[in-house]
Amino acid sequence: MFKLDERLDKDTFFISDLPLCRVLLMNDNQFPWLILVPRVADVAEIIDLDEAQQQQFLKESGFVSHVLKQKTQCDKLNVAALGNMVKQLHIHHVARFTHDVAWPKPVWGNQPACPYHIEKASVLISTYRESLALFY
Amino acid sequence: MFKLDERLDKDTFFISDLPLCRVLLMNDNQFPWLILVPRVADVAEIIDLDEAQQQQFLKESGFVSHVLKQKTQCDKLNVAALGNMVKQLHIHHVARFTHDVAWPKPVWGNQPACPYHIEKASVLISTYRESLALFY
Repeated sequence: MFKLDERLDKDTFFISDLPLCRVLLMNDNQFPWLILVPRVADVAEIIDLDEAQQQQFLKESGFVSHVLKQKTQCDKLNVAALGNMVKQLHIHHVARFTHDVAWPKPVWGNQPACPYHIEKASVLISTYRESLALFY
Repeated sequence: MFKLDERLDKDTFFISDLPLCRVLLMNDNQFPWLILVPRVADVAEIIDLDEAQQQQFLKESGFVSHVLKQKTQCDKLNVAALGNMVKQLHIHHVARFTHDVAWPKPVWGNQPACPYHIEKASVLISTYRESLALFY
């Protein structure tokens, strides 16, 4: 049975569930950063998903990428399945700007997270939730 | 028309062409590290590929992931489309070990690359080329 990893749970806010993936907002106000977690037990790699799940992941990842890009007008997307700290398969979708604090380095491990003010997080969560509700 | 980015060309060895992607070996002996570059002009994001290309990419990425995992018996795969330094769409596939020099950090920007001895690179290129020739 799927159960969200505790660390992922602690570091993020729940946005919504797409057909396959749970979508989370990373609690770091330095980057618009969504995380997709396929709701499948015991998977660590994209290739651990079966073929239908991989297809569905591709669709949901593409949708989330479009939403992020459209909402943020970012310079670049960073899409990555790393999992060196948290084994449970989760795929980062980060909107990057040439003026962000980590550019051009990756966002991981270079600077501590800056948590959102709760009001700001609430607004973002609602906005993303509305957009993701349009998933077809 | 597709033309491999100069920096990617300089930092890697050519292994082979799958139906969609060029497969390159990163010239860094610290990590088994393959890079897939879709042979499509002017794409920077996975979502810039059309639907058929995205499907094909998923297939080739999965195949390369299996090859890497099977050959290296790694602890984790890192699969990432970043592109902050090189705009041309390229997707890293890195075999990670809990004892590698960067673990658990990402491989990018944490330590300088250590180029292969040419003999070692030649052997690796041949081995990967043989495996990738089995792509179905």
